[in-house]
Order: sequence, then structure tokens, then C-alpha cells
Amino acid sequence: MQLLSQPVTSEIFTDHESEVRSYCRSWPAVFSRAKGVWLTDVDGRRYLDFFAGAGALNYGHNNPALKGPLLEYLARDGITHSLDMYTEAKGEFLTSFQELILDPRGLDYKVQFPGPTGTNAVEAALKLARKVTGRESIISFTNAFHGMTLGSLSVTGNSMKRAGAGVPLVHATPMPFDNYFGGVVEDFHWFERVLDDSGSGLNRPAAVIVETVQGEGGVNVARAEWLRALAELCRRREILLIVDDVQMGCGRTGTFFSFEEAGIVPDIVTLSKSIGGYGMPLALTLIRPDLDVWGPGEHNGTFRGNNPAFITGAAALREYWSDDTLARDVVATGDRIATAFTEMGETHRGLSHRGRGMVRGLVFDDAPAAAGVCAAAFDAGLLVETSGPSDEVVKLLPPLTIGADDLDVGLTVLAQAVDEVLA
Amino acid sequence: MQLLSQPVTSEIFTDHESEVRSYCRSWPAVFSRAKGVWLTDVDGRRYLDFFAGAGALNYGHNNPALKGPLLEYLARDGITHSLDMYTEAKGEFLTSFQELILDPRGLDYKVQFPGPTGTNAVEAALKLARKVTGRESIISFTNAFHGMTLGSLSVTGNSMKRAGAGVPLVHATPMPFDNYFGGVVEDFHWFERVLDDSGSGLNRPAAVIVETVQGEGGVNVARAEWLRALAELCRRREILLIVDDVQMGCGRTGTFFSFEEAGIVPDIVTLSKSIGGYGMPLALTLIRPDLDVWGPGEHNGTFRGNNPAFITGAAALREYWSDDTLARDVVATGDRIATAFTEMGETHRGLSHRGRGMVRGLVFDDAPAAAGVCAAAFDAGLLVETSGPSDEVVKLLPPLTIGADDLDVGLTVLAQAVDEVLA
Amino acid sequence: MQLLSQPVTSEIFTDHESEVRSYCRSWPAVFSRAKGVWLTDVDGRRYLDFFAGAGALNYGHNNPALKGPLLEYLARDGITHSLDMYTEAKGEFLTSFQELILDPRGLDYKVQFPGPTGTNAVEAALKLARKVTGRESIISFTNAFHGMTLGSLSVTGNSMKRAGAGVPLVHATPMPFDNYFGGVVEDFHWFERVLDDSGSGLNRPAAVIVETVQGEGGVNVARAEWLRALAELCRRREILLIVDDVQMGCGRTGTFFSFEEAGIVPDIVTLSKSIGGYGMPLALTLIRPDLDVWGPGEHNGTFRGNNPAFITGAAALREYWSDDTLARDVVATGDRIATAFTEMGETHRGLSHRGRGMVRGLVFDDAPAAAGVCAAAFDAGLLVETSGPSDEVVKLLPPLTIGADDLDVGLTVLAQAVDEVLA
Amino acid sequence: MQLLSQPVTSEIFTDHESEVRSYCRSWPAVFSRAKGVWLTDVDGRRYLDFFAGAGALNYGHNNPALKGPLLEYLARDGITHSLDMYTEAKGEFLTSFQELILDPRGLDYKVQFPGPTGTNAVEAALKLARKVTGRESIISFTNAFHGMTLGSLSVTGNSMKRAGAGVPLVHATPMPFDNYFGGVVEDFHWFERVLDDSGSGLNRPAAVIVETVQGEGGVNVARAEWLRALAELCRRREILLIVDDVQMGCGRTGTFFSFEEAGIVPDIVTLSKSIGGYGMPLALTLIRPDLDVWGPGEHNGTFRGNNPAFITGAAALREYWSDDTLARDVVATGDRIATAFTEMGETHRGLSHRGRGMVRGLVFDDAPAAAGVCAAAFDAGLLVETSGPSDEVVKLLPPLTIGADDLDVGLTVLAQAVDEVLA
Repeated sequence: MQLLSQPVTSEIFTDHESEVRSYCRSWPAVFSRAKGVWLTDVDGRRYLDFFAGAGALNYGHNNPALKGPLLEYLARDGITHSLDMYTEAKGEFLTSFQELILDPRGLDYKVQFPGPTGTNAVEAALKLARKVTGRESIISFTNAFHGMTLGSLSVTGNSMKRAGAGVPLVHATPMPFDNYFGGVVEDFHWFERVLDDSGSGLNRPAAVIVETVQGEGGVNVARAEWLRALAELCRRREILLIVDDVQMGCGRTGTFFSFEEAGIVPDIVTLSKSIGGYGMPLALTLIRPDLDVWGPGEHNGTFRGNNPAFITGAAALREYWSDDTLARDVVATGDRIATAFTEMGETHRGLSHRGRGMVRGLVFDDAPAAAGVCAAAFDAGLLVETSGPSDEVVKLLPPLTIGADDLDVGLTVLAQAVDEVLA
Repeated sequence: MQLLSQPVTSEIFTDHESEVRSYCRSWPAVFSRAKGVWLTDVDGRRYLDFFAGAGALNYGHNNPALKGPLLEYLARDGITHSLDMYTEAKGEFLTSFQELILDPRGLDYKVQFPGPTGTNAVEAALKLARKVTGRESIISFTNAFHGMTLGSLSVTGNSMKRAGAGVPLVHATPMPFDNYFGGVVEDFHWFERVLDDSGSGLNRPAAVIVETVQGEGGVNVARAEWLRALAELCRRREILLIVDDVQMGCGRTGTFFSFEEAGIVPDIVTLSKSIGGYGMPLALTLIRPDLDVWGPGEHNGTFRGNNPAFITGAAALREYWSDDTLARDVVATGDRIATAFTEMGETHRGLSHRGRGMVRGLVFDDAPAAAGVCAAAFDAGLLVETSGPSDEVVKLLPPLTIGADDLDVGLTVLAQAVDEVLA
Repeated sequence: MQLLSQPVTSEIFTDHESEVRSYCRSWPAVFSRAKGVWLTDVDGRRYLDFFAGAGALNYGHNNPALKGPLLEYLARDGITHSLDMYTEAKGEFLTSFQELILDPRGLDYKVQFPGPTGTNAVEAALKLARKVTGRESIISFTNAFHGMTLGSLSVTGNSMKRAGAGVPLVHATPMPFDNYFGGVVEDFHWFERVLDDSGSGLNRPAAVIVETVQGEGGVNVARAEWLRALAELCRRREILLIVDDVQMGCGRTGTFFSFEEAGIVPDIVTLSKSIGGYGMPLALTLIRPDLDVWGPGEHNGTFRGNNPAFITGAAALREYWSDDTLARDVVATGDRIATAFTEMGETHRGLSHRGRGMVRGLVFDDAPAAAGVCAAAFDAGLLVETSGPSDEVVKLLPPLTIGADDLDVGLTVLAQAVDEVLA
Repeated sequence: MQLLSQPVTSEIFTDHESEVRSYCRSWPAVFSRAKGVWLTDVDGRRYLDFFAGAGALNYGHNNPALKGPLLEYLARDGITHSLDMYTEAKGEFLTSFQELILDPRGLDYKVQFPGPTGTNAVEAALKLARKVTGRESIISFTNAFHGMTLGSLSVTGNSMKRAGAGVPLVHATPMPFDNYFGGVVEDFHWFERVLDDSGSGLNRPAAVIVETVQGEGGVNVARAEWLRALAELCRRREILLIVDDVQMGCGRTGTFFSFEEAGIVPDIVTLSKSIGGYGMPLALTLIRPDLDVWGPGEHNGTFRGNNPAFITGAAALREYWSDDTLARDVVATGDRIATAFTEMGETHRGLSHRGRGMVRGLVFDDAPAAAGVCAAAFDAGLLVETSGPSDEVVKLLPPLTIGADDLDVGLTVLAQAVDEVLA
């Protein structure tokens, strides 16, 4: 591709792009093309991608099963942009989602297209929960991540990102996520107590918003029994339960929705990242039908109807969710990663791991070592990132479709990086 | 395309999609494909599009000059999704934007990719303005529209949309937009007075956010001298000036940025809608370099790097902004619409018009007539929408690339609809 | 009185009292005793008091008609402190207030004792208005002063005092007070317009809170027709009207309530300062009976039942409000002050005056001159203070009971101080 | 006293006073006079007062040692009302407070007179803490009570009182008070964890506000070691520690300040209720000298200088705090109450007790029984009130000066009431 008179170099970005840029500081290559789990930069160097667009590329880069329908759709001048008008592509997506995802799981949700990003989906969920209940307050959890717009940021834990708001973040109260006290304190001890106590000073919440596995927060996994107890608590107190499945949905944990294992049915669910299948912006807010009290246009947005994403999203559902092959693969691959992590832990002190399905974290007692491992991995051609409040966790989010060989290559590189850093 | 066993009908949407859906209620067709200014529904019926994705399709549907590079890029497995990593496509976009837009206009901005929608761009702008100044309060204008996430909604005027927030919207104070009092009250009388008066009770603002033409608010056009006075007022009081050019940018008013005519230089500018060129989600926040005090990752988002939109966005810049042909066409076409509106106004009482470039509003003294005209136009195959606080304005936002013949067809249909409704 | 081994000197205060102290900086004497309009300091120097405790001493210092009942009550061990229990003294106060104040004026209010200060009364009024209407937002006016606790401070204009809050002050929007634009702009032009416009971005208010004369704000007098138009506007839009009569009530403007002249009937009225008669802390919130939806104890406070103040308050009502002698005196004395001010204005440039009844302001075009005049007056034994956003107004609030001779003494001193400063 | 033509009856209050009245509903007598621990109503019936104005009458009603100086001061026309001017009475109070309270305890505080009620003192404390630290958030504790104005209400636990605000209460987060989990959870487990965790979502607090014994909250006693740990935690994290000693100060727990036993030195202390000695409105905010960054007049209020209360307050300090007689008596009397409560607990099931010094609570497993006991006690001529989130605690706050005989009378009445209700 000869788009510019000059090749693209990193100077273009350091000269013209805002200081807010972030991942490019860890991975300063200029990427050009990608296929499956592999990226190639402008110098022809190849990188194995264990980050997958922070979970937006669960089916890998430029997956052929999605690319075909996309190219065909664009070639035939299918509608690209449609606000919230009815389109063939949107109808196909809705039908596929109903038939392949909701119906088989016995789930009954109305689908809102709240704008094409996760934070749009979260903002819509919070607005609706407040509208339905007439209450302002939301319960979030320690180390939660829900997005960067003002409503979502209020329920996000990270202090650096919160400080960016420039206004005090209110109407949200954090509660301890599962295992926050290392098992010492009983689940919901604090939360239940302050809900029950009319003198506690807690504003009665409209909703609880929870991730079943906190990706940005450090791969913190909520146990199924904790999630069930939370759902039960919400039900008893007439508090809505919102599961933010933006990162953990679309199969990341081994089932389409991450909450399936726990057997709970949230009142509202948010989806984004991999729901468009091809890295295309798309997001959904799923709403228990009796809660769908929106007025027409009460929440809107220009890019609610990103039809190319409907096409690739529907194709992904057909390709990967017509049976349970992918789901079983995810579990198996996750186990394989866990095994590798266990071995690393046996070799080195100060190293533990956690995760579920194909979201896995390698936890370093010495927090800075995690960044060191990521840097060493990048030098060896592997993209992995840190997470957690002290960036103490190396987080793995490989494409769910990764083959065993590529997985082993990546895990070997990672093990070497760990050896190098912890030596 | 045989995606579903059944053809897509509107029942799919009424059964499965949230009650929040809006445009589809006015235009209940199921759209299938599109080219230029024409949409085709599943029954083969054709519609002339004078709404252009609320300004997201300034270059028309599936413009061949953009489609070619897009298909080529996707075919060669160019990077689709890249967070905020460096990519060839992003580099090309940044360079094109610098060379074709900023440099020729003598503008010096750092570019932030804040997430792919207008409201992301606005939220980033507000956060940065607050961070830079250490103040919380923002001045917005009557009948402003800036987006649906909590920060943007706080500076939006529409009471129905504000009520959707479910929390009191604070840290924003509305001021009268240009001509709010029909010329009776001097510009900035109130705003200047409360700024000057240390006892006024107005929290000192971090920034003013303004649209040069309020599209959703009813095609309210700020005069160049009003904008200059506003910019001067902000400068003197050390208040940042944010121009939200999400709808009015990308040539809609006859220049790339809508504020060029006034000769002002905002501190922060937001762009979205047509910046991706092809209806693809993309948004920019442009920042005066010395205000670019973001920490790395202090604002982030999964879909900041929507590379297909970089490709089509850059192609659009090359195709349409290498010279001033389009800009001149926009002015000429705008005049043509104004002439047609003048004629309608001469035929009917209670009808006036306003606008700039190719955003034009036909204002009905009898507000419900506006919706009647839109309905009649739709029956005749023309898509136009109302705007304004009482939906009293028929708003025209045709693709900037519309030809004279199509324009005349549409204006004729519109004139007939007006005749029919006001008869 | 030999209370201390050492005489009291100003060092005690500068050593031990917080830097927040204020009036004592202008008037650094140590005051010992007082009678009527005269204060005496520890050195035996006498001062004529034209400030009267910022309006808390409308009946002068230690008025004998109040002192007698007070001493008798204390001597006989009448209940001093009673929370909100029934007491004889409270019953007497309530009956006197009903018979001497409410009944003759045809006013029907329930009386709340919200705590013994003006800001308690305002906080209770705002809470009740919000509870009744279910809305959060309050309209206040430019240069309003309503108190220092967080709710009252939100509706107060002064930027220095607002900054002391340490949190953003929200849920309040300022509107222009009468004559804010010097008569150029029509009354309520802006307020009515944003109320009517569903796209204005103004949160629909629960209530308007207004002073009929803004004392702290610079002796700004609202015209009767402006107050009537405001009351009518509130009535039409179902917005509650709160008159804060803390400083202007109890006869200051020539009628017991300052709003009587305008013939309006507010929904809620706050009283404090001189309602206790003897400078004793007491405050009332008067409530239209159908708005009295408080639950028992929903607002409380330890010193709601300050019985000595009930005794002196009731005695003051009996002494001064059984007929219209005082009211007529206030008008006459006010006119006398106005005449003196007119003369000063004729002698000096840059001097104007305004006021109503016995609240009068001498306005200096050269703001610092006002403080100079106060300092010179103090040196000559007269206590007067500045007010207004730039402290540009010398504010006169003499005891309503001042005699003609003392008044003339004070006015002569003041005229000399003006001559001295403006010479 | 023949003030009214008719005797005062309860109808006066039910006809004219707001529905917010509260204590009078439990104790519907009309009280007339009082002496020491005894009240007398208009019918000559006598009542033993074990509530003491919710702690405002620690020295009993109309204490002769205070009454004498008060009558003398009023008789000689001492200054009554002085805003924040220097007066002899205020100087005497400040000197007495310094010499008798601060100096002997080695405490160094600047004294602010923030207005004459506890909530004024708390509002000033919160404002100053926010100003000093530049942070908005305050940590309060479950079942805290700090006052009814908007700032104080935000840090108060009671949900009924919070609902009265009519706006969402923000900028405050509750933490578990000592023993909130019955000893199961370690102290500060949750608080420390969320402070340490940069991803917890807790806004970094400006200050912690705490009562050492929560009176309104149900006589919850913080252990000295808990208070020390809290003080140490605040010190380490640079969070200001505010002790609200409005109800528990002035000797209630056996030392002048309730925090003396724990050996901690708060950064800010609030005092009110009994600081004026005679049930007269007075309040102090004590400020660590280096935190006294108030600007002159940045917080003000009309009744900051309630000189009669300075006189009685200073007299009380001289009479009761020149040696440790009262303090020792309080401990002894408290023990006597505790012994009586122990006996009641041995006689009846479902009855426990807690408290410190002369604030004591009798806790009923069956919450409604507590109100029953108070009603039975009132019928027998004893004033006691309930507290706690479910009104499950009979709270005793007798005057500290009560004699043994009166105490025994009251405890016997109480025991009979308990027998009657729990029979």
C-alpha cells in the first residue's frame, strides 16, 4: 500500500498525537497487517498477539469466516451506517443473536444498541437502572473497570483514571469484590450489613454492576457461589443486577456469557468488544423485558447502527456458536495456560496465577517484574500486557481461536521472559 | 445475500429490540443497500436521503472513492483493530489530516482518538478542560446537543434526554445561544455580567462548549460576530473554548471546520460523524498543544483505533479536501436550498427558514406541521427529519456530494409535502 | 464585673481565636456593655451602632421592654432549653405570633422551629421544597445571601464564601435580581424563556428563594411589581416561592414582613435575626399548611427551643407590633436617612443611594472609598459596615427604635466621614 | 406569669406548629419551669429529666452557679449580641477555656465560633478540612449523627433524616464503626484496604469524622484502642481526624473531651450542646493551629457571639472544671447506672446494656419494647428517650450533676417500667 510519500514512522505519532496514547509506549512498532494471532509491522517483523485488542478480537485478526461476508457486503453496497433504522444486516444480527445465543440459554432480553462501545452500553445500563428504580446510587466493586465516560467512570475503581474526570465522582459506592480480603472476611458481610441497617448512611442503590472476572482489575475471578449470593442478595433487596460482560462475554471464560457457569440471570447485561467479531465497534445492552421502559430516542447515538459490525458479528455467531466446539476449546486452552503458569510458579518464588477460561493472570509479588516480563516478551515478539492496581499481573487474553502450536510458542516465550526477569 | 432462512421484516425489531428505537418509527422500511444519496429497501423501493446519517454521511453512502481503498485494505488483511497502537493506517490518517486540514489552515492541534463516537470526544474534551483549569463548571448553551453519556448529557439542553440520566445533572450552566431573545437582548449581556460579578453565584467555568450551528437544537445559526465575541470573552477570562464540530464539521457549513468563517481558533475541537468518511465510527478531540496534559492512558477506550475508518477517513480527505471544489459546491448547494425554502415561505404563511451551507431548517410556526411534512415526504420516498425543542423544524442534511438533479428531486418532493400539509 | 484576673484585651482573641474572625478587624475595640443604640467598650468609649447585629437588634441593645420579662423568666427558673417539647414560653410566643402577626395580615402558615439561626431556617425551607416537589434544583438570585451551611451556601452568590465550601456547589442556578441590568433588560426575560424552553438545559426548579432587599448583596431593592411578577411566575409554573426574610423581616423595611408592600404571599418564609428580639438565637420557617409534609423529627436540632428567646421575642411582638407606631416610625426614619443621603450625593460626585425603610445603602462609584468611610466613622465612634460584591456600599441598619437625636448624630458623623474620604 | 389571656395548652402547638415536631409527641406535657434534674409542667406535675436536652444540660436546668452570673450580666446590660466582635464576655470565655480546658490537657487549638449550634460547628469543620486538603470526600461511620444542614446530613447515617435532604447526599462514604460486626471482623480491615488499594474506587478522603460514643446511633461505644488505631491510620495517610464531641464532650463520658481516655489528639474538634452551660446556644470548632487557614469572614453567621452563653459557659468551666470532682463523679455515677442495668439484664431476657460515663443505653432485643419502656417511664414521671437505628435502645443522659437520691429514684422508675413492659 503506497498511501503516503513517506513510510509511516513512530515520529508521526509522537509529533501529532496526544500524550494520552498508551499501549504504543510499550509496543512502539508500527503495525501493518494481521492474520489470526499474528501481527506484522512495517519492517516485516511478526508478533504473536496474546492481548487480542483487550478482548475485542476473540476470533483473531481478520478471521476468514468473517472477512468473506464483510467483503461481500461492502462490495454489494450493503447499508453501512443506519442510525437506529431497520436494516437487513441488523435484522440478521438480531435474529442470529436470538436463535444462537438467547434462545438456547433460555434467556429473555430486549436488545438495545446504545452506541458502539462498551462505555455506551454501561452508560445506558446505569441510566435505565436509575430510571426504573428512581434511585441514584450504584454499587460497584473494588478494582472494577467499566469505561471512561462520566457515568461509567464513577463506577470504575482505578484512581488515576478517576482523577481524569476533573469533577468529584459521586452516586457510586465501592464494595469488596470476591476474595478481596483473601478469604478472611465472609462474603457480603459489609454489603448486607449496611443494606440492612437503616442507620448505615448508605444511599439505597438502584443497581449493582459487576464483572464476573475483573480483567483490567488484575484478573480477579469471582466464584460462582459468590455471584449466586450476589444475585440472590440483589433479588431480595430489589436492587437490579447488571453484569458488565464487555470483556468477559463472547466466550472469553468458556461460555458465551461469563455468568452462565454461575447459573444467574442478570437484569441487565452489557456486551461489546468481541460482539462485532472483527474488531468493529459494536455494543449491546440487554434488558429484562419488563425493565425496557425507555422512551423512543431517550438514549441515542450516531453509530448505533454499524452495519459492517452486524455482518461480522452475525457471521461470528454462526461460525462459532452454532455448537459448543469453541466453548470446549476455550476451557481446554485455558487449562493448558494454567498448567504452564503452574510450572512457572514452581520454578520461581513470588509468582502465582489465577483466571478462568482464556483470561489468565500471572501475578508477581514484586509488581515491577510484571512490566519487565511484558517488555522482555515484546522484545521476543510476544504482545502481553499488565493489569491490576499496581500493574502486578501479566494478563493473557489470546484469541480464543489460537492453535496449540501458536499457544506453545507464546507460552515458551513468556516462560523465558519470566526466567530472564526473575533470574 | 441469503443470510437468514426468512426475509427480514420489521417484526424482528419490534419483537427483539428495545423500545428506545426511534428513527425506525418514522421510517419503518427495512433498508438493504445504498449508493450516494439513494437507499433501497428490501422490497426494492428507493429513498432519497436528505438526512445522511444525521451528518455522518457527508460524502454519501458507500462512496466509490472511499470504498476502493477500504476493500483493498480489508482484502490485504490490514490491521482492523489496534487500540492506540501505532499502525500504518493511523499514520496515514494523521499525516493526511495534518497536511490537508491543519497545515493549510494554520491550525496547531494535537490529535486525541478518544473512542469512536462524538460523545467520547466531548467527554474527553470536558475532562481535559477540567483537568487543565482545576474547575468543574462548564457553560453550555440553550438547545445544545453534545451526547448521551453522563458528562455530555450534562451540557445538553433537551429535557427529555436529560431526564433519562436518572441523576441530577450538575456542573453545567446554560447560557443563551445567539439570537435566543430574537435580537432584543444584547449578546453576552447576561454571561458577561455574571462572570464579572463576584457575587453572582455563578461557579467560575473551566470551559464553554458551543456548536456554531445547533443541528439537533433546531438549526440555530450563530453569527460569526457572535462567535468572535464569545471567543474573545473566553480569552479575556481564561475560560477554554470548546467547539463541538461533530455534526457541523467535515464541510457541512461550507468549510472543513464550521468555525473557519468566524476566524476563531478554539482551544479544543471535537470531530466525529463524517470524519471516518464512510459512516464508520471514528472521533477526534483536537487539543491546543500546551493543553495536552493527559497522562498516558488517563482516558482510554477499546475502539480508539478503528483502522477501516482511518482508511476511509484519509481517502475522504484526499478526495475532497485537496482543493476547495467541495467547499464551493456546498455553498452553492446551500444557496439553492435556501432559494427553494424562500419560495416555500412565499407560498405559505407561518413558514421561515434558516441555516448555513448544507444544514438548512424549514421552521413551522405550527410545530406539528413539521412532523407532518416529514411523514408526507417519507411516503413520497424522501428521508427528512425534524429538530428543535418542539420538533418544529424540518432539518435538511443532504450528502454534500449530492448532484443538482437529485437535489431538485428532493426539494420538489419536499415542496409538495409542505403544500399537502399546509394546504 | 471581675471575671478575670486580667482585663480583656484584643490579644486574647488574636492569640486564641481563629483567623476567620471578621468584624473585629474593622472594629478592634473590646465591647463591654450596651443600651439602645449605644455600645461601650472596656475603656469607657461609646459607639453609636448603625449596624445592629446585622439586623439582629432591630429593637436596640438590651431593650428594657424585653429585659424585664427576660430577667423575670430566668429568675423564676422558667424552662431554658426544651428541644421541641411544649413549653409555656413557646406557647406564648406561638400565640403572640399568631395573634399579632399572622392573623392581622390574613396569613396562614404553620410554624417550624428549625434551629436557632437563619441558615437553619433556610436549610429547612430548601429541604421541604425539594421534598414536596420531588425536584432538586433551586433558583437563587445574583448577589443573594442565605447562609453558610452547605445547602444555604449553594444559593448564596458571594464567590469568596462559596469557595469556602470545598465542594462544588450544585443544584442551584442564579437568575438576575431586579434591576441587574440597570433597567435595560426586561424583567424575567431570561428566567421565563429558559423555563418555557424544553431544550434550555435548565433543570426544572423546586423553588425560587429571594430576598426582597438584598442586604449583604449591596442593599439591592426589588420593586414591588418585580416581586409580584416573580410570585405570579412561580405560581403559573408550580414552583414554590421562598422569601428569605431573615434580615429584612421584623419590620426592617417598614412592615413586619418585607413582602407585605408587594402584596404577595410566599409559600415558605424564613425569619431569624430580630425575631428573638434581644439578640437571642431564634429562627422560624413558616410553611403554607398544605406543604407541611414533614415527618416527625425529619429535621431536628438541639437548640430549637431557646426559651429565653421565646420570652423576649413575644415581648417584642407585644411591645412593638400591637399597633403600627413602629412601622410608621421606620418609614419616617428611613425617609430621613434618604434625605441625608441625597444631600451627601449632591455634595459629592460618584455617590448614590438606595434602600427601603431602615435598610439604606450609600453607594460609592469608587468602591474602596466605602471602606474608608466606615473606618473614618469608626474612628469617630460610629459603627457602619460595607456590603455589595465589591464592598462598594456603606450599609445602614440602625435599630428601628433609634431616636431622632441619635440618628442625627450618626448621620452627621457619617457625612463628615464621607467628606473626609471623598475630599 | 400572666402572659396570655388563656393558659398554654397542647392545642396551641398542634394547631400552629409544623408536623416536624417530635419529642413533644412522646412527652405531651406543657413544661413551665425547671431546676436541676426536675421539670415542672403547667399543671404542677414534676418530671425527673434523664435526657437533659439531649446532652445540652450537663449541669442541670438553671444551675444556680451559672444563673447568678447570667442574671448579673443581663442586669448590668452586658453586651448580648456581638457577631464576631471582641467582647469582655467572649474574652472571659476564651481565657477560661484556654486556662481550664486546653492548657491543663496540653492541647493546642485555635477556637472558631462557627454559629451557635452543633451542625454549624460540623459544617465549619468539614469546610475547613476540604479547604486544607483540596479533597471533597469525607469518611463517616455507620449510625453517625452530625446534624441536619446539608453538609452535616451527608455524614449522618439515619436514612429517614437523609431522605429529608431532597437531593442525593454525596461526597461521604460510610465505614463500619467499632464493633459493627460484633467483633467478627478485624478493625479497619475494610477501610485500610480500600485506602491502600489505588483501584478500590474510594475517593481519597479529606477527613474522617467520628463520635467516640454514638449517642443518636444507639450508644455505640468506640474502644480506646479502636480510636487510637483510627487516629494512627489518619495520621499515616494524611487524612484529617475530626472528633464530633457535640454530645459526648463537656464531661459526658467522664473527661472534658470524650477522646481524652484514648489519648488521641484530633485535628479538629466540634463542641456544642453543654458548652454554653445553661442550655444556651453556643458551639465551637477547635482547629489545630496550622490548619487555621480560614480567610476573614469566609465562614460567618449572625449568632456567633451569643454573649449570655459565653457568661454561663465560662461560669460552668470555673465551677466544674477547676478540679476533677465532677469528672470523678461522672465515672462513679456511670458505674452506678451500669450496675442497675446489669441487674435489669439479670432479671429479664433480651436485655443488654452499654455506655461510657454518663451516657448509657439499655438495649432491647425486641426493639418496640424500648419505646414501651420510655412511655411507661413518662407516665411515672421520668423522661428517657430511645435511640439506635431501630429505636431499640433506651438512652440515659442525665445531668452530670445529679445526686445519688434522684438517680436512684429515676433508676427505680426505669426498672419498674422495664418490668412492666417485659413482663
